Amino acid sequence: MADDAARDSAREGRAQRIADAVGHGMYARDHAARALGITLEQIAPGRARMRMTVRQDMVNGHDLCHGGMTFTLADTAFAYACNSYNRSAVAASCHIVFTAPARRGDVLTAVAEEKSLEGRSGVYDIAVTDQNGRGVALFRGHSRRLESKVVADEEVA
Amino acid sequence: MADDAARDSAREGRAQRIADAVGHGMYARDHAARALGITLEQIAPGRARMRMTVRQDMVNGHDLCHGGMTFTLADTAFAYACNSYNRSAVAASCHIVFTAPARRGDVLTAVAEEKSLEGRSGVYDIAVTDQNGRGVALFRGHSRRLESKVVADEEVA
Amino acid sequence: MADDAARDSAREGRAQRIADAVGHGMYARDHAARALGITLEQIAPGRARMRMTVRQDMVNGHDLCHGGMTFTLADTAFAYACNSYNRSAVAASCHIVFTAPARRGDVLTAVAEEKSLEGRSGVYDIAVTDQNGRGVALFRGHSRRLESKVVADEEVA
Amino acid sequence: MADDAARDSAREGRAQRIADAVGHGMYARDHAARALGITLEQIAPGRARMRMTVRQDMVNGHDLCHGGMTFTLADTAFAYACNSYNRSAVAASCHIVFTAPARRGDVLTAVAEEKSLEGRSGVYDIAVTDQNGRGVALFRGHSRRLESKVVADEEVA
Repeated sequence: MADDAARDSAREGRAQRIADAVGHGMYARDHAARALGITLEQIAPGRARMRMTVRQDMVNGHDLCHGGMTFTLADTAFAYACNSYNRSAVAASCHIVFTAPARRGDVLTAVAEEKSLEGRSGVYDIAVTDQNGRGVALFRGHSRRLESKVVADEEVA
Repeated sequence: MADDAARDSAREGRAQRIADAVGHGMYARDHAARALGITLEQIAPGRARMRMTVRQDMVNGHDLCHGGMTFTLADTAFAYACNSYNRSAVAASCHIVFTAPARRGDVLTAVAEEKSLEGRSGVYDIAVTDQNGRGVALFRGHSRRLESKVVADEEVA
Repeated sequence: MADDAARDSAREGRAQRIADAVGHGMYARDHAARALGITLEQIAPGRARMRMTVRQDMVNGHDLCHGGMTFTLADTAFAYACNSYNRSAVAASCHIVFTAPARRGDVLTAVAEEKSLEGRSGVYDIAVTDQNGRGVALFRGHSRRLESKVVADEEVA
Repeated sequence: MADDAARDSAREGRAQRIADAVGHGMYARDHAARALGITLEQIAPGRARMRMTVRQDMVNGHDLCHGGMTFTLADTAFAYACNSYNRSAVAASCHIVFTAPARRGDVLTAVAEEKSLEGRSGVYDIAVTDQNGRGVALFRGHSRRLESKVVADEEVA
C-alpha cells in the first residue's frame, strides 16, 4: 500500500514536471500570447489558467473588449491544457458563447479543464471571468493530437 | 416599370451608403482591428471582406498563426457584416473550424456573408483563405440585434 | 437567522415545485420524447436528467446509435432544464461533440446543468454517458427566453 | 482535348455510381432514418438531399417540431454527403442554429454541401428549409474519415 501510494505520487510528480516544461517551452515561443500580455498562471495535466488585462488596443468599435481578444485568451488556455502531456495537439474546432461584455481595464482569467480524452481526440472547457468573478465567455475546444512532442525530453526537469 | 427600377436602384444606393458609413464609423473606433493591421476591403448590406497579414507577433508556440488571430480576423468581418444596416448587433456565439494552418507572412482574407436574418437574430458565414486561395478556417457567427444605432444618421452620406 | 433559513428553504421548496410542475406538464405533451422512450429521471431549477435505451430503430447505416438520437436525448434534457423556472425558453443554437459511439441496447443518461443565465440568454451543458459511465457526447445549448409560461400557475402544487 | 473530356466524364460517372451505391447501401441499413420517414432524394460526391414530414410523434411540449428531429434530418444528410466517396466517415462534432420553428405537417428538406475536405477532416453545411422555402435551421458538421469502406466494391454498378 505504501509502495502504491509512493508510485502514484511519483507518477503525479512526473506528470506535473512534464506539464511545467511544456508550459515553459510553449510560452517562450508564443509571440502572440506575449504580445497580448497574456500570462500563464498555472498549468497541470489537462489543465491551465491564464490571465489578460483588456488594453486600449483590444477594444472594438462599441468600446468593448473585441470578441476575438476574449477568444484568444480562452484559446491560449485551451492550447496549453491540451498540450500539457507533451504530445502536440492542435485545435480542430472551437465554440464560444459570449455571456457578458468586458471593458477596458478588466482583468480576465481563463480556466481550462479537460472534459474528455479518447484516443487522439480531446474536449476542453474554458470559462472566462472578469476580476469580479462575472462570467464573460464559455468556450469549448475540440483538439486533435499529432505525433510530435512539444518540448524535448531533456527539457523536462 | 422604369419607376420601380429607379426606386429599387435608389434603395440599393441608400443601403450601400449606410453600409459605407457604418464601415467608416466602426473602423475609426476599432482599436483592436487596427492594432492587428486588419483592413476593411469591402462592406455592403449583410456582407464584408477584410484582410490581415500574419505578423511575427501573431504566431504561437508551434510557429503557426495563433488560432485566436485567425478567429479575430473572421470575427471582425462578422461584426461589420451584421452591423451593416446601422442597427447595432453583437455576437451571441461563434463556431470555428480550422481547416489548414497559416504561417508568418501569409495574407489572409475573410469574406462574411449573411445566411439568415429573422427578427433580431442573424447567422453569418465567414470563410478565411490565404493568398493562394487555400481555406484556412470556416467560421459561423450568430448575432443578436440591439436597439441602438452604430453611427448617427448625419454620418450617412 | 432561523427566519432567513426558513425563508430560503421555503423559496427552494417553491422553486422545486415549479420545476416539478413544468417537468410533468411538458412531458405530458412531449410526443417526440415519449415516442423515443425517453424518460424524465429528475428535474430541478436549472437542471434535468433523462434516460433513453438505444433501440433497433435508432441505429444508423454503421449499426451505431444515430447521432441524431443521441442529440435528441441531450436536447430534451436541455429543454427541461432551461424551462424549469416556468418561463418558456427555446434553443437558439446547440453544439455537440461525439466522444464515443453508442450501440443498440445501451442505456444512455443525459445530465443537464446550467452554466450561465444572463437576462434572457442561458447556457447549458449536457453530458451523455452510457450504462458503464463512459462518455458518449458533450452537448452545449444556448437558450433564449420568451415571454410566455410553460404551465399555468394553477398547475404548480 | 476530346480524350480529356471523355476521361473527365468517365471519372464523374464513376464517382456518381459510387455515391449512388453508398446511398443505396447506407439507406438499406439505416433503421433510424427509415423509422422517421426520412427519404433520400439525391446523393452525389460530397452532396446529399433528404426529406422528412413532421409527424405528430415528432413534436415537443411547445407543439413544435422537436429540435432533435430537425437535427436528425440534417445529420442524416450530413452522413450521406460525407460518406459519398465510399470511405467511411463519422461525425466528430456538429453545430446547429434554429432560425424558425417547424410545425406538424411541414415538409422539411435538408441539403448538404461539402465546404472543405483536407486529409481525413471534412466540413459540411446543411440548410434545412420547409415546403415554402423558409429557413428552419443551419447545421455545420465536422467529419473524420476512417479506414473502412461503406459498401463493398462489388456493390458499385
